[in-house]
Amino acid sequence: MRPNIYTRSLRFHARVRGKLEVVPRVQLKTQEDLSLAYTPGVAEPCRRIARQPESIFTYTRKWNTVAVVTDGSAVLGLGDIGAAAALPVMEGKAILFKEFGGVDAIPICIDSRDVQEIVRTVLLISPGLGGINLEDISSPRCFQIEEALKERLNIPVFHDDQHGTAVVVLAGLLNALELVGKKLSEVRIVICGAGAAGIAIVRFLHQAGARKMLLCDREGIVYRDRARNMNPAKEAVADLLLKEEGTLTDALKGADVFIGVSAPGLVTEAMVRQMNQEAIVFAMSNPVPEIMPERAKRAGAVVVGTGRSDLPNQINNLLAFPGIFRGALDARAPAITEAMKKAASEAIAGCVPRRRLAPDFIIPSALDRRVGQAVARAVRQAAAK
Amino acid sequence: MRPNIYTRSLRFHARVRGKLEVVPRVQLKTQEDLSLAYTPGVAEPCRRIARQPESIFTYTRKWNTVAVVTDGSAVLGLGDIGAAAALPVMEGKAILFKEFGGVDAIPICIDSRDVQEIVRTVLLISPGLGGINLEDISSPRCFQIEEALKERLNIPVFHDDQHGTAVVVLAGLLNALELVGKKLSEVRIVICGAGAAGIAIVRFLHQAGARKMLLCDREGIVYRDRARNMNPAKEAVADLLLKEEGTLTDALKGADVFIGVSAPGLVTEAMVRQMNQEAIVFAMSNPVPEIMPERAKRAGAVVVGTGRSDLPNQINNLLAFPGIFRGALDARAPAITEAMKKAASEAIAGCVPRRRLAPDFIIPSALDRRVGQAVARAVRQAAAK
Repeated sequence: MRPNIYTRSLRFHARVRGKLEVVPRVQLKTQEDLSLAYTPGVAEPCRRIARQPESIFTYTRKWNTVAVVTDGSAVLGLGDIGAAAALPVMEGKAILFKEFGGVDAIPICIDSRDVQEIVRTVLLISPGLGGINLEDISSPRCFQIEEALKERLNIPVFHDDQHGTAVVVLAGLLNALELVGKKLSEVRIVICGAGAAGIAIVRFLHQAGARKMLLCDREGIVYRDRARNMNPAKEAVADLLLKEEGTLTDALKGADVFIGVSAPGLVTEAMVRQMNQEAIVFAMSNPVPEIMPERAKRAGAVVVGTGRSDLPNQINNLLAFPGIFRGALDARAPAITEAMKKAASEAIAGCVPRRRLAPDFIIPSALDRRVGQAVARAVRQAAAK
Repeated sequence: MRPNIYTRSLRFHARVRGKLEVVPRVQLKTQEDLSLAYTPGVAEPCRRIARQPESIFTYTRKWNTVAVVTDGSAVLGLGDIGAAAALPVMEGKAILFKEFGGVDAIPICIDSRDVQEIVRTVLLISPGLGGINLEDISSPRCFQIEEALKERLNIPVFHDDQHGTAVVVLAGLLNALELVGKKLSEVRIVICGAGAAGIAIVRFLHQAGARKMLLCDREGIVYRDRARNMNPAKEAVADLLLKEEGTLTDALKGADVFIGVSAPGLVTEAMVRQMNQEAIVFAMSNPVPEIMPERAKRAGAVVVGTGRSDLPNQINNLLAFPGIFRGALDARAPAITEAMKKAASEAIAGCVPRRRLAPDFIIPSALDRRVGQAVARAVRQAAAK
């Protein structure tokens, strides 16, 4: 019998002993090669950068280098496993950056849980970096770290678990809404899961025009000054939400869209049956969705997406982050703005040809190489504005 | 007319836009590829590392990854140009690591001058690293940083400006002494320059058996409790030195060996003439030596080495650091010991075939690929002991 994916992956990792490597882009065979790339010649680009700091983008790899930074506090579905144990994920992310965006990414696993210390560390190592991708850092620290870094750095800082997810969700939603003939500003949207991804989705969809949103967590619907299980991040988005109280079941009554970034099996067929006609269900809990597609469809959902690669409509960050950074780096953007993220969503959605748009094809394949290029182009243009 | 090396190097750097890149070592074409290298499969090596921390050496690139760390405070002959302006040198070092030692090296430019802060930063990012190469950090901070990191990390920490230089100097000296038939324990050795390299050379040669050494700086001969221009590093090596006072000229009277890691033109023909018969002169100030070889020879020196690639006997760190780290990483050594460094020196010296040993050939070429392998083997064996 074939071993399962976990056993296969463990063996694969033991065989490759590291999924990435650092290689020279220049020849080092002759004395002249050494003199150009190292001493004595290298003194000249150093002097130039010391005089004209911006020229570091011309004479070094800074322009194309992104650190994939984690503290290992919220890794995949595994939770707080520590900085070292997160390295296989960071290496994986780094090679996806190169393969799908042409970005040179280096994993940086920071052995600390202190917000100030993590921020300080990233600031201190930033001179050689062209961008920062934050990854798998638990909420609400991820918000604080991202905010602090954005304030102090003039290179793009991007927490992929928030913004990458939000960008791809909007991409899928734009196509799904087109398919069912509904408008983003009019549909009732229930976001389930109030961690980094859920909060970012609320913000980003609001920015894109959504006006009837509900956010649910374990406690039920999130609303201002709710007595239990609140935090500053939830309070901060409360104004963007409908003023309702109740359970997830209550929230879903008459909803047009369900967006799950929460936990397996939270949604039943009965709950989907209470949704509006032509319901859209993105059940992205991974690897086990909030509700399996065949059940959601049986209950009346028309468009169903998940995070899984073995099911139709995979809502996968891989569609977003390589192209977003490629575009931002090429534009030498000092930050990734809302407009750049929106352009990315539209570019991803646009990669599904209109004539092929269908309930099981609202989002391109994560393996489609054209997506990264289309996203990069759109982001670069948005940055230029 | 052909532009000089600095102009050529500047153009070269602008053309290549970064001398290194980060590339995948695995295929990412199919869904199965993604499932193995990233989610969901990658969860399993993560879980394994969380349970068995040592397995990080099996499932990730940590085993082969070295950070080339600088604060940009003592870059080449340029001095304190800052962390960012040091990046071209760090990129150069990183590709030499790969090319000559098969080591994956990542440049880390730290924007701080504070010893504790630099130490803390390196400690915090160390989970993903298999070794630390400190580079171009000014004295005496380099000693403090290296000591603190060695104490707290169980991966090799190596300040190349100190130890790499010392290892290659001993290699050249072993062959030069064999050629002139003198013994390391008996020769009078004058080391000129009491920065990181000079101090390390004193320590390392003493370790190797040298017993008649003098260290000179701008103030002249260094001795315990000298009134001017002393520091803790000089005080710390005072006991390893002959108890003499005077100028560099005084020191060189009757000396068998001159080792310069100081400044251009400090040594005159007259000074060399006062040295012992069959004098050995390593004038390694770069790019302009303490005395040019033809003048040293005219004054009676038999063996002359410099740091320059266009002259015979280039005493170049490149002969040491790639092989030292290759051997240390392969042995999974928790530190680079004196025995491992000594083994490296002997391996480098041994790369010159005995029958070819000659005044103009006491050290192998920096471009000789066999040296790195020989050094790695010797260091690995020394580590195993």
